[in-house]
Amino acid sequence: MQSVRIGLLGFGTVGGSLVELITEQRTDIAALTGIDLTVTRVAVNDLTKPRPGIGDAVLTDQASEVIQADDVDLVVELVGAVDLARDWIGQALRAGKSVVTGNKALLAAHGRELFDLAAENSAELLFEASVAGAIPLMRTLQKSLRGEPITRIMGIVNGTTNYMLSAMTEDGANYAEILAEAQRLGYAEADPTADVEGHDAQAKAAIIATVAFGVSITADDVPVEGISGVTAADIANASRLGYVIKLLAVVERVGTEAPYEISARVNPTMVPFDHPLATVRGSFNAVFIEGGALDELMLYGRGAGGRPTASAVLGDVIEAASGIAQGTVRRLPALADAHVRPPEAATSAFYLDLAVDDSPGVLAEVAGVFGANGVSIRSMEQEGTGTEASLAFITHQASEADIAATIEKLTSLPSVNRVGALYRVIGP
Amino acid sequence: MQSVRIGLLGFGTVGGSLVELITEQRTDIAALTGIDLTVTRVAVNDLTKPRPGIGDAVLTDQASEVIQADDVDLVVELVGAVDLARDWIGQALRAGKSVVTGNKALLAAHGRELFDLAAENSAELLFEASVAGAIPLMRTLQKSLRGEPITRIMGIVNGTTNYMLSAMTEDGANYAEILAEAQRLGYAEADPTADVEGHDAQAKAAIIATVAFGVSITADDVPVEGISGVTAADIANASRLGYVIKLLAVVERVGTEAPYEISARVNPTMVPFDHPLATVRGSFNAVFIEGGALDELMLYGRGAGGRPTASAVLGDVIEAASGIAQGTVRRLPALADAHVRPPEAATSAFYLDLAVDDSPGVLAEVAGVFGANGVSIRSMEQEGTGTEASLAFITHQASEADIAATIEKLTSLPSVNRVGALYRVIGP
Repeated sequence: MQSVRIGLLGFGTVGGSLVELITEQRTDIAALTGIDLTVTRVAVNDLTKPRPGIGDAVLTDQASEVIQADDVDLVVELVGAVDLARDWIGQALRAGKSVVTGNKALLAAHGRELFDLAAENSAELLFEASVAGAIPLMRTLQKSLRGEPITRIMGIVNGTTNYMLSAMTEDGANYAEILAEAQRLGYAEADPTADVEGHDAQAKAAIIATVAFGVSITADDVPVEGISGVTAADIANASRLGYVIKLLAVVERVGTEAPYEISARVNPTMVPFDHPLATVRGSFNAVFIEGGALDELMLYGRGAGGRPTASAVLGDVIEAASGIAQGTVRRLPALADAHVRPPEAATSAFYLDLAVDDSPGVLAEVAGVFGANGVSIRSMEQEGTGTEASLAFITHQASEADIAATIEKLTSLPSVNRVGALYRVIGP
Repeated sequence: MQSVRIGLLGFGTVGGSLVELITEQRTDIAALTGIDLTVTRVAVNDLTKPRPGIGDAVLTDQASEVIQADDVDLVVELVGAVDLARDWIGQALRAGKSVVTGNKALLAAHGRELFDLAAENSAELLFEASVAGAIPLMRTLQKSLRGEPITRIMGIVNGTTNYMLSAMTEDGANYAEILAEAQRLGYAEADPTADVEGHDAQAKAAIIATVAFGVSITADDVPVEGISGVTAADIANASRLGYVIKLLAVVERVGTEAPYEISARVNPTMVPFDHPLATVRGSFNAVFIEGGALDELMLYGRGAGGRPTASAVLGDVIEAASGIAQGTVRRLPALADAHVRPPEAATSAFYLDLAVDDSPGVLAEVAGVFGANGVSIRSMEQEGTGTEASLAFITHQASEADIAATIEKLTSLPSVNRVGALYRVIGP
């Protein structure tokens, strides 16, 4: 039996669940892996707060003490703050200690630097919990799919917004009502910005792109649109056409050989009813992976919450512990021959609706604008309302730049009264 | 750059796809992992057959030559035959060479022996492709969920039967028609026994139980019922009650601390419409995992086919190659403090329908039989047809032994004309 001693930074919901889980599972883990896990040191902000499940002797308010301690083999960082965590993880890696973290904001901003630091110091940096909670996405990308020609990854990676969009879809309610309800039920924060404006998904998209494609990308490189502009009418229109609206983080590889262009973005997106992502309801997360060999793969589960997140952290702890027990580390995402595609070059099918004058020749004029900008129309529905007609277009694949130019020109036409909703559309 | 040289046993559909995939992805794999993969030797049965994509110089009809060759670091077994493969994998492991295999029948019969042999010889034995094709189930169980208190795993692990049940559900057609169509389309073999009688799923259930719970179990320990008895009427009845019928491999852990009892079985099972497994259609596979920390997790994808299976093999090849490059191996499923639960003690909710005399007192008599055998009724629907009534029961959780005793007693009642369909039912 090999003993591996954990130093924990942060004892919030996830940290508490992790200690609980290690206590419950210690015997079973030892039986299955030959490793005896113990939490020997815990750094917290406030030493006066009661900490059930851990003895006072292991507590300190000095993170550096935990990191440097002789009786800590492995550091688990669950603090969340970017700058402090970057400093602490750096200290641990430089001391040759492997690190497990769930800090998505840190990895989305400074992942590359930390991966390199880990490699230089022959330490492991594992971060399964940083994207999609208990879903084993990072390990699947880094291990199972290391040789897979992945073409696209589409993820529902934020539970709050999926809960809200699901509720809007099922109840026909509007955004403000559902946000208030989500806040009341604890699915949304008092300040919901990070979730509803897509920043949480944006950070995760950057991590997915880095790990799947070895591209150097940060959250700032990922264009983002949240769900605050999604209306009950948009959802009803999408539904009439056979789609459900989901907030998707989409990461794509463009081209068939290196150097590849990698495109990453976050948008509310129309997903066909019969697509597996359309069935992901409530606060669940799911990630759909398309590849040249595997065809399609979806991983579905809990993206947040104390115990689901702790489950992902524990998987990493056991992997890192087993590396320590055997004196080995595994390779981190390398830098591949790939670069970030400029956002305006990203392509998609689009849904666009317009309010136009209900008079002869208008449709031809509008269709002409699409064509002049290289945007090909796949389907159109027209609904007359007397003096005004509503037009709903779905395009074939078009670039963001071409669709932006199309909208700019449409806006300038006297016969177009209003450019309404714009959504990206997933296949067929 | 580290070179890792592969010796391949078998060059059928999966072997051919693997060589194709390695050729296509070699540069990308090298960029992301620092490993240069080459296939240096291939053993085939028939040397006269043309083998596109590999040079004659690497071909031999002597498997042992490939295994022992100095220019082979890693052996990939894709032959399938149990006894030959057992011998060859044994040779490779004893020579200290890591092995990747997709041979489910072999692992379901002799997994424990081979895992032990690998551990004794410090070699890796990886087998992701043996269960659910491109779905990364083995790695998820062995790595991500090593510390997870898994309570139940339910899998749609056979694409042929899922294709057939989906078609029966969607078209209302009967078993014989759909089997003929599946054979015509190549979804079912000319001799479909292994699929439709559940033997393929049975082997996979044994592997899942071994890997998830470290229990010593072979395919023979897994009770199995195929889909050849599923009728269009059963599917219609299930649908009326809000269920879809799926062939499920179910592996459960009973009890909350060691020694655990592990129950494994394969049955056509009624799954509620709103359960994620119910949405898995056509020839897709999916595995649904329930645990005390992760809540629920589902992995969905292609369970068969040359390239999807080769994708799983390639993931293992890269992992094993990276172990060779770094001089390390990872731990295989250990034997935990768990044993196989006797099949008659397994519990489930059940659906049972009966044809009975349509006369007063019969329902009370029938209900009395359930009660006397400790089976509690959750719901009952009665439909009179004049002289005969049809009764459809769904029970609360009951043991296989109790339900068998109930059926035996019901069969002996003069007022019971016929005991019809029996299905296991998944929650709530």
